Amino acid sequence: MNKVIIERINKIPGFEKKIAYAGPFVAKPTKRMAGRPVKYVLPGKNKLVDLKSILDAVELKDGMTISFHHALRNGDLVIQKIVAMISAKGIRDIMLSSSSLSLVQDALLPYFENGTITAVDTSGARGKIGRFIQMNKLKKPALFRTHGGRARAIETGELHIDVAFIAAPACDVFGNINGVQGKAACGSLGYAMPDAEYADKVVAVTDGLVREPLEYISIPQTQVDYIVEVDSIGDPAGIATGSIRVSKNPSELVISKYVAEVIKYSGILRDGIIFQFGSGGIAISAAGFVQKEMQKQGIKAAAGVGGASGFLTEMLENGYIKTFFDPQDFDFKAIESLRTNSRHHEISASAYANPFSANPYVNLLDVAVLSATEIDLDFNVNVLTDSYGKLIGAPGGHPDAAAGSKVTIVALPLLRGRLPMILERVQTVVTPGETVDVVVTDYGIAVNPRRRDLYERLKKTLLPVMEIEALYTKAQRLAGTAAENEFGENICGLVEYRDGTIIDVIYDML
Amino acid sequence: MNKVIIERINKIPGFEKKIAYAGPFVAKPTKRMAGRPVKYVLPGKNKLVDLKSILDAVELKDGMTISFHHALRNGDLVIQKIVAMISAKGIRDIMLSSSSLSLVQDALLPYFENGTITAVDTSGARGKIGRFIQMNKLKKPALFRTHGGRARAIETGELHIDVAFIAAPACDVFGNINGVQGKAACGSLGYAMPDAEYADKVVAVTDGLVREPLEYISIPQTQVDYIVEVDSIGDPAGIATGSIRVSKNPSELVISKYVAEVIKYSGILRDGIIFQFGSGGIAISAAGFVQKEMQKQGIKAAAGVGGASGFLTEMLENGYIKTFFDPQDFDFKAIESLRTNSRHHEISASAYANPFSANPYVNLLDVAVLSATEIDLDFNVNVLTDSYGKLIGAPGGHPDAAAGSKVTIVALPLLRGRLPMILERVQTVVTPGETVDVVVTDYGIAVNPRRRDLYERLKKTLLPVMEIEALYTKAQRLAGTAAENEFGENICGLVEYRDGTIIDVIYDML
Repeated sequence: MNKVIIERINKIPGFEKKIAYAGPFVAKPTKRMAGRPVKYVLPGKNKLVDLKSILDAVELKDGMTISFHHALRNGDLVIQKIVAMISAKGIRDIMLSSSSLSLVQDALLPYFENGTITAVDTSGARGKIGRFIQMNKLKKPALFRTHGGRARAIETGELHIDVAFIAAPACDVFGNINGVQGKAACGSLGYAMPDAEYADKVVAVTDGLVREPLEYISIPQTQVDYIVEVDSIGDPAGIATGSIRVSKNPSELVISKYVAEVIKYSGILRDGIIFQFGSGGIAISAAGFVQKEMQKQGIKAAAGVGGASGFLTEMLENGYIKTFFDPQDFDFKAIESLRTNSRHHEISASAYANPFSANPYVNLLDVAVLSATEIDLDFNVNVLTDSYGKLIGAPGGHPDAAAGSKVTIVALPLLRGRLPMILERVQTVVTPGETVDVVVTDYGIAVNPRRRDLYERLKKTLLPVMEIEALYTKAQRLAGTAAENEFGENICGLVEYRDGTIIDVIYDML
Repeated sequence: MNKVIIERINKIPGFEKKIAYAGPFVAKPTKRMAGRPVKYVLPGKNKLVDLKSILDAVELKDGMTISFHHALRNGDLVIQKIVAMISAKGIRDIMLSSSSLSLVQDALLPYFENGTITAVDTSGARGKIGRFIQMNKLKKPALFRTHGGRARAIETGELHIDVAFIAAPACDVFGNINGVQGKAACGSLGYAMPDAEYADKVVAVTDGLVREPLEYISIPQTQVDYIVEVDSIGDPAGIATGSIRVSKNPSELVISKYVAEVIKYSGILRDGIIFQFGSGGIAISAAGFVQKEMQKQGIKAAAGVGGASGFLTEMLENGYIKTFFDPQDFDFKAIESLRTNSRHHEISASAYANPFSANPYVNLLDVAVLSATEIDLDFNVNVLTDSYGKLIGAPGGHPDAAAGSKVTIVALPLLRGRLPMILERVQTVVTPGETVDVVVTDYGIAVNPRRRDLYERLKKTLLPVMEIEALYTKAQRLAGTAAENEFGENICGLVEYRDGTIIDVIYDML
């Protein structure tokens, strides 16, 4: 990150103190956490408020920050409902903080255009909202955070939330919430937990209100100020996928097999291993191959960490994984596992990945298998923009897991369509190369030179281990050199590393 | 609380801002919570420290505050171990903050006498430590808090803990802790949770260290800085009682029966009732009678709140109680229930009873059945000192449950031995009469005049309802007037109400 750019960033109100990324473990906390509001509720107080009165109840005003979680993904109806009301009331200049923004939030575009929302703090953005950001139409650059980084920002007070609106699949009249029951069950509410703990006002928005205390509680009544009942918080079809399945794509299967063998031969596959497999087909297939190897060796994983999908929770159920630390669920099977399996723990985004903690669960990882939209010769990974520089993804937990894990494997095809996925320099650096150990593609495997130990081990096998430059050259030969993307001069997005430093910026698109 | 006394209190360093109790819901929070320390632990860091190095590791110094939980009760060996080391190292003027102090802590007397510990912040004190306090030998008065009040004090920063030493029956190498496994299993660690969350440094002291992540987690690794392994943290014989049984004492049975009938006829016994029954024989027997009535009426309790004993967890198991919110366990059956029953929730002292919260679980109570050492004509309750003014108990959750519950029943025998338990004025006011609705004795039942509604209902039954003055007179007639206790002029203890105000003081004993 060049000094001139940081100086430009520091001139933007709200970003005066931002500094440049200087290494994955350089920035350290220096002060105490933000004091969360002291709440006070008399016995017998009714927390239920009509939807139409809630903005008055929370005293929402121009310029405030509101927050949401994204566990309802493409099924979410809550953000639209609340923002439409804010717009109708003429409240303006709202900062929208969401743990991420899915495509369904295209519906928010009118409220971006009419000045209701003028700032964004999120993990990802895409579709029309991504486009709006890249047209540089916000009042200040959008801030893209990792899941752990968002929790850190909330806890340290860097991200102050005035009102958190929490989509609650199940909620009792006392304010206890869970995500595992109700018609819009989405599983773990891990990404809403920091908001519930630190926001000045916390509103549960629910279509699953019950009169008696919930038997399963994700967010406790001690943190919830108001409850709003609505017809529907989300469309189940958009919330969870049916079930993420093992890949049938032949080149993905090749990659998965390589990943499993890298794990096997790198010396980390042992009884008591702790791992994270992402939700994509490659990672899930790799987990399948690893499971077979574990079966053969008669060993078990001590824990799984990260987003849960049915394949992994089946491993939990069958004893291949002993315990699971879960900030989000991808499918119905995983949700059901969270509700019923006592070894399946719901954890907050902070517990999962916040670097400023006495050990987030990502620090337990022996190995993390992650994806990428692009990777470069320095092993830097992009998961936020596509080959054309367009916003399509989110840092999510990628940089967090990569930093925490002893071995970080990034798996991706060498080409997607006719485009090379290994570049000289990625469009957007999201996960720094210092935290990436092995790149696995369908054409070969490259080990980060910082991990000579892994290189020596893998070089002894029949795996196609080569320099990253060789993979790059191969990609270039097959796909040609990618055309340079064209951007404007305006910074419309900041990519924050998990520790709060700025690791890259997004320029506006012409 | 008279003004002159408050002025005297305000001259004591540390108590300058204390104000007098003015009503159960008068003092309100005005500021934000204390910011807890921002922690930072690199992946792969080993948290294990030798016992003999731990005081250096946490940089313990003269005048600091150390904290402990009391869930190991009379079996606790941790406080002694740590304090002995502090003494041996010559560190002085330590403030001892414990969620309570059991008789086993008599072993600490030498460290009080040699100036290692010169201040105490606790719920209860008894035995030799109680005597030391009442001989006015501390540097400043001991502060007696309720369970909810202690959590409030920690969260608001009023009670700043430098180092929390948490006795951990089970602990993994990453710092996750539970109280339900291990040879010194004590059940819920609810009273240690605020310390773990807010102390500057958190040390797990364990005799149940395991290499893989625990499958049940009470306090997460995100809060634990160091782990110290010791041979034994406690003697199981002193931790939990075998099983608290239904009373066989005839006058206790009369009281229990009255309590159950008060609950039945006061209109609060309905499907979905939420209750707290203390751990004494009277309360448990009353729960038994209530269960029979529930069975007859075909109704269920929505929740149980408060300390759990086997009788109540059996009701949970059998479906008479649907869910249980549990800050502490009294016997092995309750511990086992916590470990295995997913409807049995471990909650922190703060969630249980902190008045400065968006609803502690005590606020859900329809009825709380509580005990007393004494009660007076204004319905004020003493649970801290005995008839001779000696420290023998603790406020515990008594004032919290009484304030939260819609109907608070205090049950006690009219006489104990030859002493009257209903007095003109209790020796020490711990729970204010405004929060006590019904007094049940073996000689009759009195309803607080503030609850005309309950009086009308109960007056229609065959229950022996009478004025509290009539009960008082009866006690006097049977036992004679109690002799006045004699005290010195020095304030050696402050009794804090849950909101932080001072409700009474303890004078030194001649």
